[in-house]
Formats: sequence, structure tokens, C-alpha cells
Amino acid sequence: MLVSDLGEEGLLEQIRAIFADTASRIPVPIGDDAAVFDCPPGKQQVWTTDLMLEGVHFQRSWLTPGELGRKSLAVNLSDLAAMGARPGCVLLSLALPLDTEVEYVTDLCRGFSAMAREVDMPVAGGDTCRADKGLMVSVTAGGTVPQGGAMLRSGASKGDSLYVSGFPGSAAAGMRLIEAGRSEDFPGLREAFIAPRPRLDVGRSLAALGVGAGIDISDGIAVDLRHICRDSGVGAEVRLEELPVSAELEQACGQWGWLPWDLALGGGEDYELLFTVSETLTGQVASLSRELGVPLTRIGRITGADTGTVLVDGSGACTEMPLKGYDHFRTDG
Amino acid sequence: MLVSDLGEEGLLEQIRAIFADTASRIPVPIGDDAAVFDCPPGKQQVWTTDLMLEGVHFQRSWLTPGELGRKSLAVNLSDLAAMGARPGCVLLSLALPLDTEVEYVTDLCRGFSAMAREVDMPVAGGDTCRADKGLMVSVTAGGTVPQGGAMLRSGASKGDSLYVSGFPGSAAAGMRLIEAGRSEDFPGLREAFIAPRPRLDVGRSLAALGVGAGIDISDGIAVDLRHICRDSGVGAEVRLEELPVSAELEQACGQWGWLPWDLALGGGEDYELLFTVSETLTGQVASLSRELGVPLTRIGRITGADTGTVLVDGSGACTEMPLKGYDHFRTDG
Repeated sequence: MLVSDLGEEGLLEQIRAIFADTASRIPVPIGDDAAVFDCPPGKQQVWTTDLMLEGVHFQRSWLTPGELGRKSLAVNLSDLAAMGARPGCVLLSLALPLDTEVEYVTDLCRGFSAMAREVDMPVAGGDTCRADKGLMVSVTAGGTVPQGGAMLRSGASKGDSLYVSGFPGSAAAGMRLIEAGRSEDFPGLREAFIAPRPRLDVGRSLAALGVGAGIDISDGIAVDLRHICRDSGVGAEVRLEELPVSAELEQACGQWGWLPWDLALGGGEDYELLFTVSETLTGQVASLSRELGVPLTRIGRITGADTGTVLVDGSGACTEMPLKGYDHFRTDG
Repeated sequence: MLVSDLGEEGLLEQIRAIFADTASRIPVPIGDDAAVFDCPPGKQQVWTTDLMLEGVHFQRSWLTPGELGRKSLAVNLSDLAAMGARPGCVLLSLALPLDTEVEYVTDLCRGFSAMAREVDMPVAGGDTCRADKGLMVSVTAGGTVPQGGAMLRSGASKGDSLYVSGFPGSAAAGMRLIEAGRSEDFPGLREAFIAPRPRLDVGRSLAALGVGAGIDISDGIAVDLRHICRDSGVGAEVRLEELPVSAELEQACGQWGWLPWDLALGGGEDYELLFTVSETLTGQVASLSRELGVPLTRIGRITGADTGTVLVDGSGACTEMPLKGYDHFRTDG
């Protein structure tokens, strides 16, 4: 059945039923003019929003509707993670072409709901409407941090160590494999792109430690590190040889002739955390990595603003960080 | 210049500059992974979100970019008004075709910013991306109500009086005039559709009075009253002769052969408030109307659920409320 056969009221009823379990925890969930919920005392609100458009961010052939629902929430959770925030409530808006299958929409909502339940986050409301062309998902996620406790892009200091979580470049490799129709060869890389794990525990622990700066890598290390450097008024040095490469990523790169560091620096969509910590905290970062079971790798250091953002290769030679990264409004990439 | 010439970073810089004045009031405004702001103690959060898509909700030829920016915030503020909430922060997301003029985007943001300043609301963040076809605006607005003080759809009781603010049907008439290219004949009706005034003061005052139920009329009185009746477990009686009709609306209806009550009941997009109050409060509603300079008209009463939702004409004859209203997924209207 298509959404045009079911109509708006019928579709909303099905969507509400899917979100009823998580929403029942808040005072006024989906169904009124707006959602109402409590803000824990002594906390600050943290809000983020992301659009996902068919043909721009994804093709329907790349992932199941459930995976799309999951990812549309995960990318927002990654922003909360990068602030060190605890998830609060989330709103989901959908613009749907008239020929969308109702089952596609309900599967999408089930994937979204599963991700929300994983992080104990009520789906509090949203909006639905018709789209002329291409499905669109707009998500706004809210969370909380202790008063003044958010991890910002502006917190890096000269002398800090620079760390990254996970294996950046994996998502970009996964996307290339999906586009080439060969993602089944490397399921871990497909998963890195399709089902990124928001690093909420890492982010919250880092913020509690009082680290320097933090950001999530949505546009590639090159672009996102530049954001830290600009906002903190510092420079940075990344050691190519220290960039963590998983066995699967290495194998895929060998097979397809890709450079792992090229994917890590310019690929984007990793939703890992890039962060800086003072020397005194590096031991605690190592403990945190073991405790949470998440690789946290030192890949360089923060320098003075005058040295810019540079790459250091194995021989010690420095080059300026290439200006890579995804620009939504440049058609030449 | 087109957004594809300027690129993402350049466009974001211009957008941030426009919102800098309102955003400077919050701890972490636009520019980090997420926005951070304070929640006043003892208050509950109220959140709402709305999509506006070119070709679905508007045509660019209907309104200036500034008017589009203003309206995209106003419709969200109307939802806050219907909850009796005080505006907090707002997020703005834009999906833009590559051939969009940069000036169109900045004018849109200026209109949005002007509406935000009118209600003292910081623009805290958002997202921008490319759209394949058609401009899209997604807004999430937050506000606060005193603990347990939200005005809900479920608060109506048998015996309550039913009121409406303003002159419903004006927006639908305005839209028809715009589509016919004749909106300059009735500037007040054009304005009702293009620049609706969110009834924030009315909503907050009503919630403070402790009225019954409240909702904003986005889909027409027929549909929105049915929401109140369903959620409150009541019926309602609307007296056709009591529906307020402005001189301009009456004149336009006479000229074009429209029925004012047809526009008010089924038209939608009015963003006026429909609410119920117990008999003991009707005097205070009259005072409020004078004080705020907003027409608040008694149009009927709340009955038991068994009588359904009915229309009463001048002769006293009852008919069931027509099932009118906009359905996004029905192409036959």
C-alpha cells in the first residue's frame, strides 16, 4: 500500500504506535501541538539537527529503510556525543513522495525507534508531509550536559595531544564499496558507513575528564581538525603513520588501490570523535579506551597557530594539510 | 551569485553573521557540533517542528524570501502559542537547489531573524545541504511552560464555551487570491496567509487563566476541533452564525462566490487559536481580548461525546461537521 492510499491520519496512527513505547515516558508526547518534557535541574540543554535527503546523502538502493531510520538518528547522536551530552528527546520529520510504500515508512520508523531505545531516548514528535521528489528525513535531537560541561571545538591548547576514536576512513571505504556494488566483500566497512555507532559513552567520559576540544568527524579529519584549530586559535600536526587502520580497511585499500590516510583525512561520514587532551590526561584516555572497548589513538599534537595544520610523514617531512572535505554546494567535490 | 559559486563555508559565514545578534545571548550558539543553552529552573521544555517545502507548502512566486523566512518560523511559534509556551531557542535547516541565489538565502534568513527578534528568540543552530529539486525549510522551535502548565488538546470539558481568535478563513481566502493573481485587491487576506501572527500572548494568557483545551488552526476548524474532541473525549457544537467574518473577508467572499464558513472550517493555514473555557472564565476571555487587541469570539460549546461534532445553522438545524481539511497524502484534496 502507498502512502497516498492510506492518507495522512492513517499513516500518523501507524507512526505513533511505533513510537508509543519510548514516548510514554514524557509528559506530553507525539499528538499535541508540541511535545512537553522536563529538563533535569542544574543541566544545560544541547540541541542539534541534521537533514538526510535521498539523492544527496543516500540512495535507497544503498540501505534498508530500517538502516536509514537508524542512521538518521545516529548522525544526530554523534553531534550530542561530540558535546559530551546525554541524550534527551528527539523529533523526526519526514517528507515522503506519494508513491512511497507505507511499509517503507514504518520500517524506517522502526529502525529509528530501535536506535532511540538503544540510547533510552523518547521520540517526542515531528512532522510529515508530501515531497514532490525524493524522501527527506529531518531530525532534531536534544540532550543535556552539566552546567558549563559541554566539550567544545574551542577548547584545544598548544601542547595537547590529538586523538581519534575508531578507524576513520572506514565509512568512506564502505561508501565506495557500496557504490561499486561490492560491499559484501567487507561487511565491517559497509557497517561503518551504514550503521555508524555514535560515541556517546566516549564523549560523556571525555567531557567529564575535562579534555580540551572535541568534534565529530562528519566531513573528514582534514576539515574537522581545521574547525578545532580555527575555533581554538591553534595549529596542529598529524602524523600519517599514527592514523589507525583496521585490518579490513587495509585489505580493501590494498585491493582497490586506495590510500587509507586519504580516506581518513578527506572521506567523512565516520562519526568518530576527534579530540585533544593535555599530556597529564593521556593515561586516563588509555584507561577509557580499554574500559569502553573503543580504540582511542593518539595521531598528533596541537601546536601554535603560526604553524598551521600540517601532515608529518614517516621521514619527518611536513606538508600542509590538504584542503579536503565534502562541500554541499560544490558540484566538483 | 549562486550558492554553487559561493560554496558551503562561504554561505555558512553569511548565515551566521545574520543570526549573530540573537545567538550571542546563549552559551554556545551556531558553530559547534550542537547549541547549548540554559533551561530556566522550574520550567518544562516544549518542542515543535515543521517542514515547509517548495511546491508543497508554497511557490516562490507567492512570497518574498523574507516572507518565507518569517512564515517558516511563525508556523512553529503558533504551535508554541497553542501550548501556552514562552519562546526559547530555534534551529533552522535549509535544503537548497544549487541554482539558488545567495541573496535569496540571506533574505530568507533576514526574514527569519526579524521574526525571531520580535519574540526575543535566539537562532541557535541548524543545518544546510544541497537539494536536488525544490527549496526546503525545516524549523524546530523550543519554548518553556511552568511545570504542568501546558495548554493541551485533551483539556476540554462538557459545558465549556468554544472560542476562536482572529478571523479564520482569511488565510485560505488569501491563498486563493494569490493563486488567482489578485491578492493586491485584499492586502489583509494576503497578509493572513503570508505573514500569520503567532498568538503567543493569547496562548500564554489563556494557559495562565487555566482554560480547557487549546489548539492552533493549521488544518481548518473542522479538523482541528475534531482533534480536541477526540483527545478530550467530548463532542462540540459550532454555530455557523457566530463564526467571525472580517469586512475584507466578507467582501472577497461576495466578489468571488466563496462561503466564509467553508473557508473557516476547511481552509486551514490560519494559525489562530481554537480553545475552550469554562463558563466561569468567559468574562476574563472578554477582558483579555480587549487588553491584547485580538478578537476572541465564542463560536459554540463543548457537548458530550455522544453528540459528535455538529454545525448549527441560523434556523437551529444541526448537521454533522463536514470532514474537511488538508491531507498531505491525498491527491484529490
